[in-house]
Amino acid sequence: MTPPIVAVIGGGQLARMMAPAATALGITLRVLVESDQASAAESSHEAVVGLPTDPDAIARLLAVPRPDVVTWEHEHIPAEVFEVCEAAGVPARPGLGALRFAQDKIEMRARMDELGLPNPAWRPVATMEDLDGFLAEHGPSVLKTARGGYDGKGVRVVSEASQARDWLESAAGGGPRLLVEAKVPFTRELAAQVARTPSGETRTWPVVESVQRDGVCSEVTAPAPGLSDERAAQARSIAEHVAAALGVTGVLAVELFETEDGLLINELAMRPHNSGHWTIDGAVTSQFEQHLRAVLDLPLGDTSALAPWTVMANVLGGARVNLAGSLADVVDPGAKVHLYAKSVRPGRKVGHVTVTGADARQTYDRAVAAAAIVRDGGAA
Amino acid sequence: MTPPIVAVIGGGQLARMMAPAATALGITLRVLVESDQASAAESSHEAVVGLPTDPDAIARLLAVPRPDVVTWEHEHIPAEVFEVCEAAGVPARPGLGALRFAQDKIEMRARMDELGLPNPAWRPVATMEDLDGFLAEHGPSVLKTARGGYDGKGVRVVSEASQARDWLESAAGGGPRLLVEAKVPFTRELAAQVARTPSGETRTWPVVESVQRDGVCSEVTAPAPGLSDERAAQARSIAEHVAAALGVTGVLAVELFETEDGLLINELAMRPHNSGHWTIDGAVTSQFEQHLRAVLDLPLGDTSALAPWTVMANVLGGARVNLAGSLADVVDPGAKVHLYAKSVRPGRKVGHVTVTGADARQTYDRAVAAAAIVRDGGAA
Repeated sequence: MTPPIVAVIGGGQLARMMAPAATALGITLRVLVESDQASAAESSHEAVVGLPTDPDAIARLLAVPRPDVVTWEHEHIPAEVFEVCEAAGVPARPGLGALRFAQDKIEMRARMDELGLPNPAWRPVATMEDLDGFLAEHGPSVLKTARGGYDGKGVRVVSEASQARDWLESAAGGGPRLLVEAKVPFTRELAAQVARTPSGETRTWPVVESVQRDGVCSEVTAPAPGLSDERAAQARSIAEHVAAALGVTGVLAVELFETEDGLLINELAMRPHNSGHWTIDGAVTSQFEQHLRAVLDLPLGDTSALAPWTVMANVLGGARVNLAGSLADVVDPGAKVHLYAKSVRPGRKVGHVTVTGADARQTYDRAVAAAAIVRDGGAA
Repeated sequence: MTPPIVAVIGGGQLARMMAPAATALGITLRVLVESDQASAAESSHEAVVGLPTDPDAIARLLAVPRPDVVTWEHEHIPAEVFEVCEAAGVPARPGLGALRFAQDKIEMRARMDELGLPNPAWRPVATMEDLDGFLAEHGPSVLKTARGGYDGKGVRVVSEASQARDWLESAAGGGPRLLVEAKVPFTRELAAQVARTPSGETRTWPVVESVQRDGVCSEVTAPAPGLSDERAAQARSIAEHVAAALGVTGVLAVELFETEDGLLINELAMRPHNSGHWTIDGAVTSQFEQHLRAVLDLPLGDTSALAPWTVMANVLGGARVNLAGSLADVVDPGAKVHLYAKSVRPGRKVGHVTVTGADARQTYDRAVAAAAIVRDGGAA
C-alpha cells in the first residue's frame, strides 16, 4: 500500500499530536523538526532535522517520494517556502493567501473589517502621535506586534505612548510593525474551531470556553458553560465565514471575546490549536485527525462531543522535572494524560490532561487536579 | 525528561496500535519488527529489525538505554527470550509463567479445569484410539494443535479419527501436540477483556459480542446486545479470575461461547486482541493504552464506554489493493478508519472501522458498510 505522505513544518507538540491520527489513518507523517530532541522527533514517522529558513532542510522535506501536501504547526513560515513548494508541485495548506492573515495581525484586522466581522476598535501604529490619538479615545489599550507574538509575547498594555517608545523605535528601524487594540471589557474568552477542505467542506466543533492565566491558555471547557444556542451558533458562523472568506485549508481556531454586547474576534490560528486539544479525548474526530483530513482534501469527520462535558487543563512547567513520574501519580482513572516529551522549563507548555464527565464543575476540578499533580507531583 | 521505554516483540498491527497510546503518554515504544515493511515499523518510536528467534536482535531490543519492560504482541515467543530478559534485568510481561497458557491450549484447558472454570469437554490426543474414544462420546468435534494456531489455522472439525491421520503422524514425529474439544452448540461468541498490573490492580471492559466468519473475527459489538447483567458480570469475573490465577500482567482477552446453559471458555489471548479494538474509539481507555499502563505497573485507566453502542468491523483483504484510496471513499463522518499499512492479500486483516452510536442496529450497519467500502471500494 502506498500511503499518503503529509509533510509538516515544525516539531512542537502540535506536530507530535498529529502522529497518532496519522498512524490510525495509515498516513505517513514527515516532520521538519528543529532538532532530534524536538517534541515531535520521536513520534514522527519520518523526521527531517532542520529549520524552515534552511533551503536544504526544505528540500529534504519535499524529497521523493514527494509528500502529497505540506502543512505547518506554527505560522512562522518564510514566504520562500511557499515558492519552493509550488516549484516542487506540492500543495501548501493553508496557503500563503490564507496564512498571512494569521501571520500578520494588521492584515487580519483589516480583513475582518472588510468582511464586516466583529473587531474591537484598533488601528495600525507607526508613531507616538498615532498611539496617543488612539489612547485619548479608548483609554489604556493593548499594543501588539503585527508578527511573531504568541502566548502573551508581543503584547503590552499601554496607557500612554511613552510606554511604547522602544517598540516604536524598533518598528521605525525595520522591526515588527505595531497595532493597538482597545482593551475589551470581556466577560470571558471563547474559541470556535472549524476545519475546511480545498473542496470547501467545513465542519465546526462545539464552541469552548478558554481560561487564560498570564496570557497563556490554562483550561478549556467544552462546550462553553451557559453559552446560549444563539451565541454558539454565531461563534461557529464567524469561524465558517472566516475560513471560507480567507480560503483556509486545514483547521482554524478563532479566539473570541464574549462581552455583554456580543462577540469580538481576538486572534486567528490556522493550525491545530491549544483550544482544540480537548477533541482528542472528547470528540468523535480530533482537531489533529481533522487537520490531516482537511489538508489532504478528504471527507471531514464528525465533530460531535463524546460526553456532556470535556475539560482540558494545560500542564506548564513547574516543580516536577521528570514528568514520566507523573504517570504513576495521577490515580484518577479518567484523567487522560498527554506528555509532550519536552524538557521542563517554568511556564513552558509540557503536557495537558483531559477529563470527560457528566457534571461540568466536577469534570473541571478533576482535570485541574490531575494537571497539578503532573506539574508538581504529590497530591494536588 | 527521561521517558519510560517499552520494548515490544512483534511488528504487526497490535504493536502498531500501541504507538498512538505511547505517544500520548510520553512513552518511548521500541519494537522488534520482522522487516522495515512491517505494520509497526513506521509508527514505532524506535524500530529494531529482526526475529524473536535471533539472539542478536533481542540483544539490540534490550540495549542501553534499557527498556523498562518487554512485552509482546503475539504469543510465539521462544523460552530463551525470557532467560535473556531476566539476565538483562528487564521484566518480561506477561511472563512465561502466564504466557505458556496462551501459547499451549493443552496447558490452558488443564489449568481452567483445575480452577473450576467452564471448559467444553476436551482431552489431549496422541493416538487414533484417543480421538475415536472422544468422538464416540461427543460426536463431530474440533481438533486443534496445542500451539501455533490463530485465526482458524491449526483447527479442524473431525467426525472420525481417519480425518486426523496426517496431524497425528505429525504429532508423533515431534510436530505440534493435539487436543480435541467437543463442538459447542453456542448461540454466539462473546469476549471479556481485562487488564492486570504486577501490583494486582485489575479492570475489565464491557463484555462484547464477536461475530466470526470462516474462523476470523468479522465484527465486534460493545456491549454484547441483550446480554443479561448477571451473565456479563459472570464473564467479567471469569476474566478477572483467569488473570489473577495465572498471574497475567498486561491485557488478557477471554473468548467465550454463550450457550443455552451458560458460558464456556474458548480461547485466551495475553495481549491486545481484535475483540478489543473497539476500545480505541469507544472507551475512555483503549486496550493499547491499558496494556502499556499494565506492563509498566501504572494505575489503570477507566474502561467505561463512551457511547451506548460501539461496533468494530474488520477489513480483510478484498478487491481494493491500495487502501489509501478508501480514506476518500468513506464519507460516513462517524466512521473511524484504521489502516495497518500492510500489503493487501485476500482475507488478511489490513484495517478496521469503528462507529459509535445510540442505536445498536444502525451503528452495526454503518460500521459494516464503511468496512466494505474500505475493502472493496465504491458504494457498499
